[in-house]
Amino acid sequence: MNKLKVGVIGTGRIGKVHIESLVTRIAETEVVSIADVNLDQAKKVAAQFNIQNVTSSCSELINNPDVEAVIICSSTDTHTPLIKEAAAAGKHIFCEKPIDLSLENIYAALEAVEKAGVKMMLGFNRRFDPNFSKIHTMVKEGQIGDPHVLKITSRDPEPPPGEYAMVSGGIFVDMVIHDFDMARYIVGSEVTEIFTKANVLVDPEIGKAGDFDAAVSTLYFENGAIGVIDNSRKAVYGYDQRLEIFGSKGMVNADNNTPDRDLFFNKEGIHASLPLHFFMERYTESYVREVKAFVDSVRNDAPLPVSGEDGLKSMLIAIAARKSALENRPVKISEVA
Amino acid sequence: MNKLKVGVIGTGRIGKVHIESLVTRIAETEVVSIADVNLDQAKKVAAQFNIQNVTSSCSELINNPDVEAVIICSSTDTHTPLIKEAAAAGKHIFCEKPIDLSLENIYAALEAVEKAGVKMMLGFNRRFDPNFSKIHTMVKEGQIGDPHVLKITSRDPEPPPGEYAMVSGGIFVDMVIHDFDMARYIVGSEVTEIFTKANVLVDPEIGKAGDFDAAVSTLYFENGAIGVIDNSRKAVYGYDQRLEIFGSKGMVNADNNTPDRDLFFNKEGIHASLPLHFFMERYTESYVREVKAFVDSVRNDAPLPVSGEDGLKSMLIAIAARKSALENRPVKISEVA
Amino acid sequence: MNKLKVGVIGTGRIGKVHIESLVTRIAETEVVSIADVNLDQAKKVAAQFNIQNVTSSCSELINNPDVEAVIICSSTDTHTPLIKEAAAAGKHIFCEKPIDLSLENIYAALEAVEKAGVKMMLGFNRRFDPNFSKIHTMVKEGQIGDPHVLKITSRDPEPPPGEYAMVSGGIFVDMVIHDFDMARYIVGSEVTEIFTKANVLVDPEIGKAGDFDAAVSTLYFENGAIGVIDNSRKAVYGYDQRLEIFGSKGMVNADNNTPDRDLFFNKEGIHASLPLHFFMERYTESYVREVKAFVDSVRNDAPLPVSGEDGLKSMLIAIAARKSALENRPVKISEVA
Amino acid sequence: MNKLKVGVIGTGRIGKVHIESLVTRIAETEVVSIADVNLDQAKKVAAQFNIQNVTSSCSELINNPDVEAVIICSSTDTHTPLIKEAAAAGKHIFCEKPIDLSLENIYAALEAVEKAGVKMMLGFNRRFDPNFSKIHTMVKEGQIGDPHVLKITSRDPEPPPGEYAMVSGGIFVDMVIHDFDMARYIVGSEVTEIFTKANVLVDPEIGKAGDFDAAVSTLYFENGAIGVIDNSRKAVYGYDQRLEIFGSKGMVNADNNTPDRDLFFNKEGIHASLPLHFFMERYTESYVREVKAFVDSVRNDAPLPVSGEDGLKSMLIAIAARKSALENRPVKISEVA
Repeated sequence: MNKLKVGVIGTGRIGKVHIESLVTRIAETEVVSIADVNLDQAKKVAAQFNIQNVTSSCSELINNPDVEAVIICSSTDTHTPLIKEAAAAGKHIFCEKPIDLSLENIYAALEAVEKAGVKMMLGFNRRFDPNFSKIHTMVKEGQIGDPHVLKITSRDPEPPPGEYAMVSGGIFVDMVIHDFDMARYIVGSEVTEIFTKANVLVDPEIGKAGDFDAAVSTLYFENGAIGVIDNSRKAVYGYDQRLEIFGSKGMVNADNNTPDRDLFFNKEGIHASLPLHFFMERYTESYVREVKAFVDSVRNDAPLPVSGEDGLKSMLIAIAARKSALENRPVKISEVA
Repeated sequence: MNKLKVGVIGTGRIGKVHIESLVTRIAETEVVSIADVNLDQAKKVAAQFNIQNVTSSCSELINNPDVEAVIICSSTDTHTPLIKEAAAAGKHIFCEKPIDLSLENIYAALEAVEKAGVKMMLGFNRRFDPNFSKIHTMVKEGQIGDPHVLKITSRDPEPPPGEYAMVSGGIFVDMVIHDFDMARYIVGSEVTEIFTKANVLVDPEIGKAGDFDAAVSTLYFENGAIGVIDNSRKAVYGYDQRLEIFGSKGMVNADNNTPDRDLFFNKEGIHASLPLHFFMERYTESYVREVKAFVDSVRNDAPLPVSGEDGLKSMLIAIAARKSALENRPVKISEVA
Repeated sequence: MNKLKVGVIGTGRIGKVHIESLVTRIAETEVVSIADVNLDQAKKVAAQFNIQNVTSSCSELINNPDVEAVIICSSTDTHTPLIKEAAAAGKHIFCEKPIDLSLENIYAALEAVEKAGVKMMLGFNRRFDPNFSKIHTMVKEGQIGDPHVLKITSRDPEPPPGEYAMVSGGIFVDMVIHDFDMARYIVGSEVTEIFTKANVLVDPEIGKAGDFDAAVSTLYFENGAIGVIDNSRKAVYGYDQRLEIFGSKGMVNADNNTPDRDLFFNKEGIHASLPLHFFMERYTESYVREVKAFVDSVRNDAPLPVSGEDGLKSMLIAIAARKSALENRPVKISEVA
Repeated sequence: MNKLKVGVIGTGRIGKVHIESLVTRIAETEVVSIADVNLDQAKKVAAQFNIQNVTSSCSELINNPDVEAVIICSSTDTHTPLIKEAAAAGKHIFCEKPIDLSLENIYAALEAVEKAGVKMMLGFNRRFDPNFSKIHTMVKEGQIGDPHVLKITSRDPEPPPGEYAMVSGGIFVDMVIHDFDMARYIVGSEVTEIFTKANVLVDPEIGKAGDFDAAVSTLYFENGAIGVIDNSRKAVYGYDQRLEIFGSKGMVNADNNTPDRDLFFNKEGIHASLPLHFFMERYTESYVREVKAFVDSVRNDAPLPVSGEDGLKSMLIAIAARKSALENRPVKISEVA
């Protein structure tokens, strides 16, 4: 089988992560072009990874006849137009989350993809983390029996700047959306209702911008399971990414990953290393695995592990979560769809 | 200082636990009488612990001039009358939780205690567990900074018989009340509102009786902290009693206690022992420590570590939790007081 | 069956531990007399535990017709004469370790016991610790297959005073003897040879007294297994009592016990509580269980879980260990027997 | 600074690991040539990593004027001649352990390197493992005080074929040499004497070949510390790589790495994943870091983190270990040098 020829749009932090994976870790693919409106940045990245074709025009990349699939890593507001253009050009699409901040745009993007008959995968990388994907499999295989309670703890080491808070869509759309997707992925059932209690406990600037920095959400699933997600924008001990699912036959939980397995004993106590500090260190492996999964699905014409529909569903939960927090009442997902 | 002379009413499971603590572990006290409507049972216990005075009449015990303090371990419906009688007789009181299933009775009992000027302590034994009392102290000393999120997981190994479910007041009054008290104890702030999502996932008989067997409650505290408590009536791996509090300066959590610290490695994996199976094994030490704390407070005329007011407040949260679950909306504690 | 009537000789630290167990935790026994050359001390203990008969004469206690079994907790140099006298009087014996510092005396004591046909159990309490007794059972049941490597780490929190070092027989006879017994107990095979490398790293006074404070011993077992025991007289983080056995089908190890299961996360790291500080806290439960096992064996005329022979065999290993350390060569146990 | 131009000799398992690291992970280097007597194998690897120059002649590679440094990953018997040839050609050298099975050859190789004034680093990759390198730093910084006891457990998941046992020099030269190097690296002091108790417990074929498959070694260090290393050729639960160092101010230990941090609770117990199965998975990161350290040292003309001298010293301990096991006596390193 031939290598899959991809073009990458956006060469910022996450774009570089994917380019590195594609070039060094995934033999079944070839990066034929990269694009960034900041051409200098794109050229630097191209040089580092020995990529021949560089452009500041996303259209040029999309319409490059050598490009079979497009990896969209540019800013959120560009996602919908790029998805439409790529779909129209018949290219398969991998897009970072969220699809768009506007539901209308999301629907339009999904429609364009469906009409064009191309594949589109959303970048919910955490599904590919070994801790979580193993739990997904265990649940699916029935090892914990019927799921009763799902618990996710997800805390960032540092809050975003206050002014950025709502630009990104707010805590639920920017951050917790990952956890909403994870909840659906692990429980294997749709969320029908959410109650979110949120507060501003970390940074008053975030509150002034109209956002929250601490939240606890109760999710109700179609299969009767109840989920709870607790979030904070600032954990002084670093990135906290834990998950637990409890069912009729057992429970499985995932603890944080740490840079080492050393324990230090002295007069004061027993001391271990803090969790890996943030998402770039913590999810290194899952970024590789998600892009590899996309490449494999496209090459084998197999179903994608994360679909555009998944991107939509998590977005709806995020919108309902914010509504619930603002109105202090449980909100059905059907209310916001 | 003289030994404190106590009488114990009720010689069932928990009564025996307290009698054993008083006789063998707490030198500062003397059990001068025990009472049980089942006189044979009382006599057996008296023989085991070498207690001279045994009676089937609670009034006789309460009014025995040798008795300075009364430990009430009889069934919940007897609590209020016994509290009133003991208070009237000027005896200090230790009473198992809950005070009563009726709020009216609770108010009457507290009033009787206050009027009589005696001391009354509620049996929230978990406050005396080493895992939790240490966390209480750490929070109080500011080691975790301002509390942001409290998490309690509390699961029983086996559900009660379906017919017993509502007799005991239902899951919130019978079981989760411990967690509500723990929440107030750890966070050090009052709960103002609760949202509870509950379901019947374990035993349909419990549902038929009008009760729930799985619940997730979101608590809102006066100080802005958010709490979440998840409960189940049946965890196949045994009694699950964990707690975590997260704040501006750090987090502390308590894992389950296990009967040993052995790890077994074989071809299939690494295996550890299950948690101590139920409350009698798990909270052995806390039962001793709570009764000792009561004895010490009475003897030294010092404030009690758990008051009747604490019993009332947790009961109000329990009532609000059930109301929230039934009406699917957040309920303010002030609504039910 | 009647209660077993026991007398306890020696009311110091360990004597009090056993008296408390016998009085409060073991229903099948009655402490009819206690003796101590320090009569005041004995009287204080008698008052605390409500024991009627107190004496300063060990002979009087031994020959008290009410006494069926004698618990010897007095100083090591009194063990042999007391064992002989108790055996002659036809009383069963529980004796703290070691039997005696002199091999000749040990042989004489064992002979007296055998001739008298009484039972004698040695106080190797650690065999009754839940962590270790479970491993013993697992090995016996074949869960780890053929034992290949045994590892014991045993470190005290504080060294004894230098002048005490050799009075107690030195580190091997006083401290490591527990580990030698544990090694035999876990592996289920006799030690045939030992190589011990020892040093003075903690306190030069211990070296001046002719003893060591750090040692690593390699043990060779009849069944081909190899054992290694590392000891130190001072671990700044407290009492360190770990064990591991590795075999053809798996491995099992025991970690230290801690006062709580709390984990504290802050900017500096993740922090756990230190192990229980010393043997009185660490082995509380095993002291109860060993005395209960003695009482049960005597009452049921069943084999003792630890015999006088066990006391002898561990002593021989201890003597060989010291010889090996002094001569820097492996020493066969048969050389010193 | 220019990239360092390297040639790699040997394209088997470990050669491929280094080539992949050099090509994809280490930007400061360029693989200009690879050589293997099996030219087909070399060509396949060259194709995979896009390397232009391939040869079956090691001499050609060594004398290729573009090659500044040679990475020797061929079989042990070729090391000495290749080191000599590379040194003579003025090329820097990275050589897999051991340097040679013959001490005479090792001395000759070191002499050649010294005479030529080139750099040579030995492939003790475990020094670059995050668990162990952090402990090395902690010891060096004095966090554990004076080192008293070092413990290393090192067990393979599967034994080598019996016939291979002595070809590779036996368990001490082939396997335990890594642990001897680690012991020196962590304690920061030279080993002066060793006592090794070894046995054949896993595979009788290994015994027939004159080798051992289980061993416990006691090491004595110049600074008074005592070390113990226990080894087995077969742990059914996988690769076991733990280390502990205990000193006057504390202890630090390293546990095994696992593929995930999941815990599964069911009726039978609490279950965790086994350690990463063998060295390729376990030491993935350390292989990258060691080659990067070599490249950095050469490019910056800085001291190498592992020297040829280190290779010699660990070999001497390995030879003394075997001698000790065969003669059942402690052997001074000076006896075999």
